[in-house]
Amino acid sequence: MPTVLGQNQYGKAETRVVRVTREGPVHHIRDLNVSIALSGAMSDVHTKGSNAGVLPTDTTKNTVFAFAKEHGIASAEDFAVRLARHFVSGQETIHTARIRVEEYGWDRIPADGDAAHSFVRRGQETRTAQVTYHGQSNGHGGQGEQWQVLSGLKGLVVMNTTDSEFHGYVKDRYTTLPETRDRILATEVNACWRHAGRPEGDKPDWDASYERARGHLLAAFAGTYSLSLQQTLYAMGSRVVDQEPGIDEIRLSLPNKHHFLADLRPFGLDNDNEVYFAADRPYGLIEATVLRDGVTAAVPVDLTNLP
Amino acid sequence: MPTVLGQNQYGKAETRVVRVTREGPVHHIRDLNVSIALSGAMSDVHTKGSNAGVLPTDTTKNTVFAFAKEHGIASAEDFAVRLARHFVSGQETIHTARIRVEEYGWDRIPADGDAAHSFVRRGQETRTAQVTYHGQSNGHGGQGEQWQVLSGLKGLVVMNTTDSEFHGYVKDRYTTLPETRDRILATEVNACWRHAGRPEGDKPDWDASYERARGHLLAAFAGTYSLSLQQTLYAMGSRVVDQEPGIDEIRLSLPNKHHFLADLRPFGLDNDNEVYFAADRPYGLIEATVLRDGVTAAVPVDLTNLP
Amino acid sequence: MPTVLGQNQYGKAETRVVRVTREGPVHHIRDLNVSIALSGAMSDVHTKGSNAGVLPTDTTKNTVFAFAKEHGIASAEDFAVRLARHFVSGQETIHTARIRVEEYGWDRIPADGDAAHSFVRRGQETRTAQVTYHGQSNGHGGQGEQWQVLSGLKGLVVMNTTDSEFHGYVKDRYTTLPETRDRILATEVNACWRHAGRPEGDKPDWDASYERARGHLLAAFAGTYSLSLQQTLYAMGSRVVDQEPGIDEIRLSLPNKHHFLADLRPFGLDNDNEVYFAADRPYGLIEATVLRDGVTAAVPVDLTNLP
Amino acid sequence: MPTVLGQNQYGKAETRVVRVTREGPVHHIRDLNVSIALSGAMSDVHTKGSNAGVLPTDTTKNTVFAFAKEHGIASAEDFAVRLARHFVSGQETIHTARIRVEEYGWDRIPADGDAAHSFVRRGQETRTAQVTYHGQSNGHGGQGEQWQVLSGLKGLVVMNTTDSEFHGYVKDRYTTLPETRDRILATEVNACWRHAGRPEGDKPDWDASYERARGHLLAAFAGTYSLSLQQTLYAMGSRVVDQEPGIDEIRLSLPNKHHFLADLRPFGLDNDNEVYFAADRPYGLIEATVLRDGVTAAVPVDLTNLP
Repeated sequence: MPTVLGQNQYGKAETRVVRVTREGPVHHIRDLNVSIALSGAMSDVHTKGSNAGVLPTDTTKNTVFAFAKEHGIASAEDFAVRLARHFVSGQETIHTARIRVEEYGWDRIPADGDAAHSFVRRGQETRTAQVTYHGQSNGHGGQGEQWQVLSGLKGLVVMNTTDSEFHGYVKDRYTTLPETRDRILATEVNACWRHAGRPEGDKPDWDASYERARGHLLAAFAGTYSLSLQQTLYAMGSRVVDQEPGIDEIRLSLPNKHHFLADLRPFGLDNDNEVYFAADRPYGLIEATVLRDGVTAAVPVDLTNLP
Repeated sequence: MPTVLGQNQYGKAETRVVRVTREGPVHHIRDLNVSIALSGAMSDVHTKGSNAGVLPTDTTKNTVFAFAKEHGIASAEDFAVRLARHFVSGQETIHTARIRVEEYGWDRIPADGDAAHSFVRRGQETRTAQVTYHGQSNGHGGQGEQWQVLSGLKGLVVMNTTDSEFHGYVKDRYTTLPETRDRILATEVNACWRHAGRPEGDKPDWDASYERARGHLLAAFAGTYSLSLQQTLYAMGSRVVDQEPGIDEIRLSLPNKHHFLADLRPFGLDNDNEVYFAADRPYGLIEATVLRDGVTAAVPVDLTNLP
Repeated sequence: MPTVLGQNQYGKAETRVVRVTREGPVHHIRDLNVSIALSGAMSDVHTKGSNAGVLPTDTTKNTVFAFAKEHGIASAEDFAVRLARHFVSGQETIHTARIRVEEYGWDRIPADGDAAHSFVRRGQETRTAQVTYHGQSNGHGGQGEQWQVLSGLKGLVVMNTTDSEFHGYVKDRYTTLPETRDRILATEVNACWRHAGRPEGDKPDWDASYERARGHLLAAFAGTYSLSLQQTLYAMGSRVVDQEPGIDEIRLSLPNKHHFLADLRPFGLDNDNEVYFAADRPYGLIEATVLRDGVTAAVPVDLTNLP
Repeated sequence: MPTVLGQNQYGKAETRVVRVTREGPVHHIRDLNVSIALSGAMSDVHTKGSNAGVLPTDTTKNTVFAFAKEHGIASAEDFAVRLARHFVSGQETIHTARIRVEEYGWDRIPADGDAAHSFVRRGQETRTAQVTYHGQSNGHGGQGEQWQVLSGLKGLVVMNTTDSEFHGYVKDRYTTLPETRDRILATEVNACWRHAGRPEGDKPDWDASYERARGHLLAAFAGTYSLSLQQTLYAMGSRVVDQEPGIDEIRLSLPNKHHFLADLRPFGLDNDNEVYFAADRPYGLIEATVLRDGVTAAVPVDLTNLP
């Protein structure tokens, strides 16, 4: 037979689970979107239609809801670690589990007072986590189980209204862009960072780690006098890796949300960096990995763009 | 000729203008999406293709940028009022102008320190404004110029994790829904309110008015023990009109963002309002106008749903 | 009490129903998205939280599925008429029902051969229908029941690569647009037309009527030498009303999907209407109603924009 | 210094170019969305802010428009090959270029008659192409230049209303799904296939190749009696590789667009596979690579999901 099966995976995507925990009158919520991808000994289902080794995607969905009850959701990362171990240790045909989570933040409504059960959706950005677990029998070099834990965010939109220049670049036949010494620099931060160490045992406080990483990204964006978006990207990524010993690598995808100076000269008006047109498409797209010296890169190049 | 021209309007939609104002090192920004619709004596362009009375949509876009420079953007409402007056008073073929504005909020990045030129996009919701101006010669009853100013918001997502019941409803042949004494109540607030009075002269502080109205909506949502989403809607709307003498009417469109209790019984687990499935479609949609007694309703019924 | 309840409605939005009808081995499908809005004597639920007059939105969803079984789906319009009558005649608190339907088209996969149960989603556009029914006791002037049936489409994207000019327009201080004698004219047709007559008894073949109306819109777009998008709009609308005696009125909303000539002069190249940049925002938006002479306009002005 | 730069790339994303070619009165159009990603010796811009090796993203956009004029657009693949070679051969700091293209199809409007310049957007799906070129000096093993050409499509929605079963799967504690011998099978085909050989010289007719591959996917979907979506996926992928000697590998990502049988028993109705609820989320997601025996897989695992 001339064709063979290559990499394959399956599972339930985008299970939307909300977990409420009541502490007396005070409620706490976790609001997740969980996507599961399983792989292993799955040739027969592809080539013969035999489901004998297939745990249904519907079951993986049920497991999300059941685990939310049985174990709670301490954090996106903890929840994903638990799910990944469950699927791989529970079925011998499943060798690898990859759990992706989007988490939506909620703030308490100030007017709620003592009732403490009223919330408003927070901010623009979505927190993300991805846990990949290869079990013992995974055939990945026979070196026993392997974990990879990625945390991240997407949709964090930021803008500097000054302290950004762009000049000194290559000019070829098709170059018309004028150099500038003062421009708006705006982007939507999409970032994904990899934690060192195993996610069981010596694990970090995932929520605190996330908040620190987010804070570094914002601080580096705000604090960098920028000669190019690449320079800002590197400052953002290296600040996270420098400041967080538990993070070995970060991948950033930064669309340049162009703000063009409106041309007001036809109306007899000057425009001293006051009025801008916010453009949609096309946009510059700057992407790079920053990693600790000596470490091997492992975050997929396109991961920050995925839905 | 068997066909005639009815209501018609034209203009440039979704002009994205960002205005930066520098106060020494401290920058302030306004980020708007402006849509212009003009109408008047426009038969010839429709039936004969004569553009002699048509101000190009491109010109209306240019005007947005030029006015951002010449007059600044004090608020979405102020900016829209100025544009509306300009188009109607500037061209005799234009009798009515309707200006719609979406405004995107930005917070300062705390790490920015003294530099004060770094921002992060705020929250989920979009602030909206719509100003409609009929000039003197508008043929609307010969009563001179007329103004309508609407403010609003869309995309404000809120949730109460308790203090919501639903029972005592009509049951017909097709009713299967069980009654409940404790459920999650979540919605995305889309609201549009109408200001009394003229927008020139005795106008309110639009930004302060907006913040108060938004605060009333959140407080009423959080503070209402709900027997139906209709009851919550009416509490939200009436609180705005009760508390704000300058607001005569509000239209609310509240999709019921259903959170269904996950059925964990097959797994030998109970679910004491802990684990929910957040559903997408279908969804209940509750819409109503609340207005001051004695006032005539004027906010269009479908306005809160518009893009 | 200072506030009163104005226009209000409620129901289940976006129920996605697919109906399969088997004719021996040949299957037929209807794929609809149904949104229901009911109104009537609903003060108590808003002001007191009493659901005694409220048929749950969940029941209205169930009714969609049950009716798809009991009555089939002959067309979007027929299905909506039946639902509207059911809700108004079935509950005395419900005086008016408005049913909105989106229909997604499917073509047979040619390779399917005799099996005749394999389909591929058709085209870009969505067919729409809206039926509004005021029952006898509706208080609308005591003139007995009233029907309004609207059909339409949205998302039909069309382009003429020539035979479009734009010149002779008003120039004011802010006009910079150059006149043109040859441009691309592209738009996304959003249209909504109103049928004369009652939808029960002497009703048209709704599917055939839709196909004819769609054909007229395409033919008029293709066949009109255009001096402005308004002129093209009027040609499209009047062709439908002229050719279809059963259609009294049409509302069109046509965003001008601008294709700007790329400026290639800096590269020593001319551009004889060959290379265009397809822009996103801002865009011109041209909207108008065309109606049979002597008829009163009744299609809401903003209807074609609604989700 | 503790951090280093890993994989990085930059360029202009989503340049929307439309090319009109006039053949007497008959016009032909190509409508593309082009995204460019360049990489090479780019350390200095990241770590020092020096743009001395950076060709601006604005220039890459200009090049798209200029090349559309100078060379025309014979096909998405041809255009991408030409752009890739240009950037790598033109700048010594650029070692690799990856060009992604989305192409939107247009059909002629039948009513257009002889004019032949009127078009309507075709279908739901988007054709895709991705060309990656490593130049001579790319450091990829010193083996000279390397090309990879991928073609594909996304958004092709298909449905079989019968000839699909699902049973015989693993049951664990969390399994509740009932087995079925007759269900709807629907999916949105996202596919990406890799061409053997070099894209210059002995290249295929890209348009004809695309149409054949698309036809194989549809025929295999329609013609496969399915015991699982995995089986259908494999049938689709292997048919393309079997039938097309020039295609060595295909990656498919198939979301299972669930159509659940509506439960009509509470209403005293049976449902003999007639009425379905089309669900949004969650959804099964089945992904796999199918490749010619003996060939090394090279299509990125997540590519079919990318925007």
